[in-house]
Amino acid sequence: MADKRVNKVVLAYSGGLDTSIILKWLQTTYGCEVVTFTADLGQGEELEPARKKAELLGIKPENIFIEDLRDEFVRDYVFPMFRANAQYEGLYLLGTSIARPLIAKKQIEIAERVGADAVAHGATGKGNDQVRFELGYYALKPDVTVIAPWREWDLRSREALIAFAEQNQIPIAKDKRGEAPFSVDANLLHASSEGKVLEDPAAEVPDYVYSRTNDPESAPDQPTVISITFEKGDPVAIDGQKMGPADLLAKLNELGRLNGIGRLDLVENRFVGMKSRGMYETPGGTILHLAHRGIESITLDRGAAHLKDELMPKYAELIYNGFWFSPEREMLQAMIDKSQEFVTGEVKLKLYKGGVHLIGRTSPYSLYDQDLVTFEEGAVAYDHRDAAGFIKLNALRLRTLAQRKKKLGL
Amino acid sequence: MADKRVNKVVLAYSGGLDTSIILKWLQTTYGCEVVTFTADLGQGEELEPARKKAELLGIKPENIFIEDLRDEFVRDYVFPMFRANAQYEGLYLLGTSIARPLIAKKQIEIAERVGADAVAHGATGKGNDQVRFELGYYALKPDVTVIAPWREWDLRSREALIAFAEQNQIPIAKDKRGEAPFSVDANLLHASSEGKVLEDPAAEVPDYVYSRTNDPESAPDQPTVISITFEKGDPVAIDGQKMGPADLLAKLNELGRLNGIGRLDLVENRFVGMKSRGMYETPGGTILHLAHRGIESITLDRGAAHLKDELMPKYAELIYNGFWFSPEREMLQAMIDKSQEFVTGEVKLKLYKGGVHLIGRTSPYSLYDQDLVTFEEGAVAYDHRDAAGFIKLNALRLRTLAQRKKKLGL
Amino acid sequence: MADKRVNKVVLAYSGGLDTSIILKWLQTTYGCEVVTFTADLGQGEELEPARKKAELLGIKPENIFIEDLRDEFVRDYVFPMFRANAQYEGLYLLGTSIARPLIAKKQIEIAERVGADAVAHGATGKGNDQVRFELGYYALKPDVTVIAPWREWDLRSREALIAFAEQNQIPIAKDKRGEAPFSVDANLLHASSEGKVLEDPAAEVPDYVYSRTNDPESAPDQPTVISITFEKGDPVAIDGQKMGPADLLAKLNELGRLNGIGRLDLVENRFVGMKSRGMYETPGGTILHLAHRGIESITLDRGAAHLKDELMPKYAELIYNGFWFSPEREMLQAMIDKSQEFVTGEVKLKLYKGGVHLIGRTSPYSLYDQDLVTFEEGAVAYDHRDAAGFIKLNALRLRTLAQRKKKLGL
Amino acid sequence: MADKRVNKVVLAYSGGLDTSIILKWLQTTYGCEVVTFTADLGQGEELEPARKKAELLGIKPENIFIEDLRDEFVRDYVFPMFRANAQYEGLYLLGTSIARPLIAKKQIEIAERVGADAVAHGATGKGNDQVRFELGYYALKPDVTVIAPWREWDLRSREALIAFAEQNQIPIAKDKRGEAPFSVDANLLHASSEGKVLEDPAAEVPDYVYSRTNDPESAPDQPTVISITFEKGDPVAIDGQKMGPADLLAKLNELGRLNGIGRLDLVENRFVGMKSRGMYETPGGTILHLAHRGIESITLDRGAAHLKDELMPKYAELIYNGFWFSPEREMLQAMIDKSQEFVTGEVKLKLYKGGVHLIGRTSPYSLYDQDLVTFEEGAVAYDHRDAAGFIKLNALRLRTLAQRKKKLGL
Repeated sequence: MADKRVNKVVLAYSGGLDTSIILKWLQTTYGCEVVTFTADLGQGEELEPARKKAELLGIKPENIFIEDLRDEFVRDYVFPMFRANAQYEGLYLLGTSIARPLIAKKQIEIAERVGADAVAHGATGKGNDQVRFELGYYALKPDVTVIAPWREWDLRSREALIAFAEQNQIPIAKDKRGEAPFSVDANLLHASSEGKVLEDPAAEVPDYVYSRTNDPESAPDQPTVISITFEKGDPVAIDGQKMGPADLLAKLNELGRLNGIGRLDLVENRFVGMKSRGMYETPGGTILHLAHRGIESITLDRGAAHLKDELMPKYAELIYNGFWFSPEREMLQAMIDKSQEFVTGEVKLKLYKGGVHLIGRTSPYSLYDQDLVTFEEGAVAYDHRDAAGFIKLNALRLRTLAQRKKKLGL
Repeated sequence: MADKRVNKVVLAYSGGLDTSIILKWLQTTYGCEVVTFTADLGQGEELEPARKKAELLGIKPENIFIEDLRDEFVRDYVFPMFRANAQYEGLYLLGTSIARPLIAKKQIEIAERVGADAVAHGATGKGNDQVRFELGYYALKPDVTVIAPWREWDLRSREALIAFAEQNQIPIAKDKRGEAPFSVDANLLHASSEGKVLEDPAAEVPDYVYSRTNDPESAPDQPTVISITFEKGDPVAIDGQKMGPADLLAKLNELGRLNGIGRLDLVENRFVGMKSRGMYETPGGTILHLAHRGIESITLDRGAAHLKDELMPKYAELIYNGFWFSPEREMLQAMIDKSQEFVTGEVKLKLYKGGVHLIGRTSPYSLYDQDLVTFEEGAVAYDHRDAAGFIKLNALRLRTLAQRKKKLGL
Repeated sequence: MADKRVNKVVLAYSGGLDTSIILKWLQTTYGCEVVTFTADLGQGEELEPARKKAELLGIKPENIFIEDLRDEFVRDYVFPMFRANAQYEGLYLLGTSIARPLIAKKQIEIAERVGADAVAHGATGKGNDQVRFELGYYALKPDVTVIAPWREWDLRSREALIAFAEQNQIPIAKDKRGEAPFSVDANLLHASSEGKVLEDPAAEVPDYVYSRTNDPESAPDQPTVISITFEKGDPVAIDGQKMGPADLLAKLNELGRLNGIGRLDLVENRFVGMKSRGMYETPGGTILHLAHRGIESITLDRGAAHLKDELMPKYAELIYNGFWFSPEREMLQAMIDKSQEFVTGEVKLKLYKGGVHLIGRTSPYSLYDQDLVTFEEGAVAYDHRDAAGFIKLNALRLRTLAQRKKKLGL
Repeated sequence: MADKRVNKVVLAYSGGLDTSIILKWLQTTYGCEVVTFTADLGQGEELEPARKKAELLGIKPENIFIEDLRDEFVRDYVFPMFRANAQYEGLYLLGTSIARPLIAKKQIEIAERVGADAVAHGATGKGNDQVRFELGYYALKPDVTVIAPWREWDLRSREALIAFAEQNQIPIAKDKRGEAPFSVDANLLHASSEGKVLEDPAAEVPDYVYSRTNDPESAPDQPTVISITFEKGDPVAIDGQKMGPADLLAKLNELGRLNGIGRLDLVENRFVGMKSRGMYETPGGTILHLAHRGIESITLDRGAAHLKDELMPKYAELIYNGFWFSPEREMLQAMIDKSQEFVTGEVKLKLYKGGVHLIGRTSPYSLYDQDLVTFEEGAVAYDHRDAAGFIKLNALRLRTLAQRKKKLGL
């Protein structure tokens, strides 16, 4: 079964049933030492139980790695991506996609530290996450051996998995015996759900699937008005109060949750070739996205803004497909970051029953100059008569085309 | 003052005070025959008063043209644009931009019919509309003389305008004596407001500016659930009831108005070079935009969808800048229309207090195949093991890059 | 070894040693009926020997398909691609890439006709051609079984192949016993060579590798001057003489060969992830490419031309990667074809010792209007003073940026 | 005539008749102090005569600025642009366009130093250069007054100009009395010619128009073989000999001139709306362009290379249109520069009778790994069997499309 020789493998380990089965399967199949890595990316679960579980499954204490990555995640992954106003297929804020490269990077760092020759993850063989993990691994450690148990083993049903767990003394929580009605991925940016009850794209997402947001209909009847302060493209304060990256996003999540913001029911195109239907909850991110567009609207020049808009779909696609650690993503990032120097200021937003409404923006670097848009003529910079020449020259080629048509009697 | 000789001019005439002043100014300045053209694009005003006003100002009956363009507007301009999911600067649904080419086209058609050598419009010298009108004129009649009174005359203040009106026996409604607190453009797709009270981008849009939508906070406490049926990319029915283009959009507007949908407070970049702040209400269009994305999500292939997304900003910019009648817009339209052959089916939407939520979609041409996304393996088309090869080859160049780095000790 | 059941397979058969080995291997490995398909795409080889060879290897006469595809190839594949001015990675005219979809299409058509459930090709497991063939197969017959012997068999060396041939009574030409110093692909558009002696990208391509062109240094000392006539983007005549697509390209090849035109020594990026070094000879195509740009330069509007230029790299990449039969290639083709309506006229070219030089172009639809470029002012369309307004409005946003900088003391 | 008040103006002064007339016209029309700026950008003319001429025309010594900008021009403008492989409309290497921003920048620097409030240039009102100069001026000094004499004065004919010169004691060389048969722009990168004898795009460029290159037909019968060494995307040595930017480009020009390289006869689309026909000679640049593509071919990853290719047309258009000092050009430059870190190595080229042929490339950072392209399997990175999965997943969406078609009986 194991067609590769492996000495030591670093597993992305959540402490849950599935990755515990993987842990055991790695030991038995590859006969190798397993190192577990458990990260806090804001998924909302305690990490210490993962340590205990790992110990219980025979992992040596020095092989158990647990890390709080929330600030790094938000500062170095989420915020850079939001500078680009990235949305995959026009709507998806890439909450799952953006977390994978960081986990991959940490696994590789640990592999280098402990001298492991392999890494493993718990993503299935049909999704995008396997690609994102593995492109990350390979880009950072080209000679690493990658083990993707879901593609390799023959545990093809829930029953087979449970049987394997029982054979291997893996504790099974009662509610994990049956198949879950949907699968969930969560981190500080979002929670996503897919599978089973969500598979029919004609059927509304059942209420119990949502975990991060109030139903808009049961959200408060009074709107919440907030302000977000940006510095060089990144948010640094809410209502004037400075916060670190993770705290700030957590606060936005709280505000979004309250007001039922950030639900998205989407059929998307996976990199591996099929369509899938997912439900996303990105409360804070949804607020942040609109806020960032708002502060850019007064601080960014048209040329910069339109170039960003034109390249955004490509940038989003790269992240979705798992190419965070690629030269082209880094090139685009350099371009985007270059544009954010003056994206500093404050936006005011109204949150209300599922909606985010931008209601004001100010900046010390504002390019919006009221003198230029009043109906009286700005003395220097704008002369009405210039518009005539501007239009005439823009029209020249169209007139030439029209003259050709005329000449041809078309 | 008049540096061009003109015999007959076709004026885009609303019947309001400003275009009545223009009418008179054209007569006195150019000494030419004036032909008026008044169109119903769903702006929500009676047209017959415009006829009376024109007659009163001495226009011969055969020189007064009044036309209901609502269906043509929606069918040949709005719907083609929505096939592209066009949004300018990520948010604006181009409600004003899309109406100008049609008005320009009709003015030119009338000019050809009545043998006029000039056309005139009432757009100011600082906005985008002058560009849109005039690029349209020139593209359709390259030798036409264009008169843009706001750029030419010396009526530089409200007082001067009122004085001119009084001198020329133009009736002045009481509420038109003072300066309007903001200026409005409206048609079946949207109403936009800008200027004066809206000029400070930090200040919230006052409630009295809105005319097309309920305040979300006073919208019904119960959501409205509707379905929209699409055929080849265009909506054809609401809740199963077939409707013509204009009626359908009007119905969506009604539903949107009720639920407070489609308000947008935006600072945008004008083609003429400065930023401006506008408020847009696009109730039906906002619903339609999301609905179209929804039906595309199950009927459009990824390659087609991503190509559309990448080119959308350029397409939107072309329309915003007034290049509807340009080869490049027509080329992009050919590309977009080619993609819509199977964009047929039905989407279900929930409208609630300012928000539009997609809750289901079906299509006889759906590419979403449930067999492919369940956790069991699809027998033929998808084999988990294929993913390994797919990832390995996608990773190959990244591994090569990493090996170079390693070799260099970086 | 054969992990799929197959009844009848349509093989792309050249009649050469390698595909003869494949033929036999398919019979022995899959125990299935083999149908051969041999096409004339202008590779410069007789087809009838392939029939005899197939018969000799036991293929029933009704299972031998031989077709002259030269005109279809040039008319429906080469010319549409040249309308786009397609060059992969700035230089490669896609001579191999463009032939694969047509072969795939014919194999599938034959498979449908004879009731075959499988297709096979002779492309190796490291190149792009396997992808191009197979994407074509799958796009046209989604349930087809694809057999790629080079990826499946264990004939891992030249010796093993020769041994297999000997065991199976396949005749072996003397010069085929050893390994070829490079491998060749040829059709009416080009010949390409790669492998072995070409593998060191630092070493000049040896002279004996070239087969389609004279060495520029030994080409005639007198230039050849020709004219090419285009209609709607496609060439239709040389020196005034009308010709069918294949004849026209053959004639251009002859002219190019004589003058040493169209050699390209390239390191390119394969779709499967590695770089490879190839040598291409595209004599006629190199002439045609420049000629098409030339006729476009006077008949295509700037907006159309620049849109085409911006999308060309993507279009070329799609063809290179094998996505000819994809919605996005078809959408781009619709866009490109839309632009070619008036790309009609004549260009004059000088061919000389490896170079193609455009020396003149005329068209009944020329947009180049001499009145507009003389130093005297064109009376109507262009007024020098318009330029001032044009520049001022284009500068407005840059001035605003500069004022911000100034205000900030930067 | 002078509708602006001006105290001191910095004139881009060549010392020739036309800019001498402008100098005088500025003095008489604006009654202002004139400061002359004469730059050596490698146009091949002595600068000291310009000083004498200026003095003769009454310019105070402290108001005469003469500067050798050759190294700055090549290092900070030409080389950065060549990193992008920029070609306007597929062919033009932007020799004129790239020089204008530097001249504009220097004029503004001098204006700041001497306290001038205006700048002036000698570009006509129909060309691109007026735009390039003025966008540069405005981007660097937003409140500057720009004087474009050719758009303002009434010297509408050669006779009027000569008469003005005679009235103002401007010395007139004999051969300047009549109209030149074409106009020329030259710098270290190229020489361009347009107008009069070149206006008919059907007529071959007369031999006497060329000034920088031998006719390919009279170039040496023996090819010249050279090597160019690159560091981080820029050339630093020829045949192993290190050179400064200007010297290196001058050397390439010499090699190109000898071998008749870099002639281009082009009809292009001007930013101001009409087409024009020009003849360009870019001997060194033509060699450099191909050389840079060659070194990139082995050192740049596919993702980086294709992103560059896709954005090149936009980047070239920005430079052509005069937007060098714009945020979007700077953003693209940041992106491009990011990619050049490892674009280091050597390329070998053969120059022969008008052609440049790449014949070899090497780099310490080469990504071309011979092990990967031989027919034997690379042990680790590439497994033939991976290709099957790669193709299958890339085909998945095409198969789904085909299944839909089948189901619909299409």
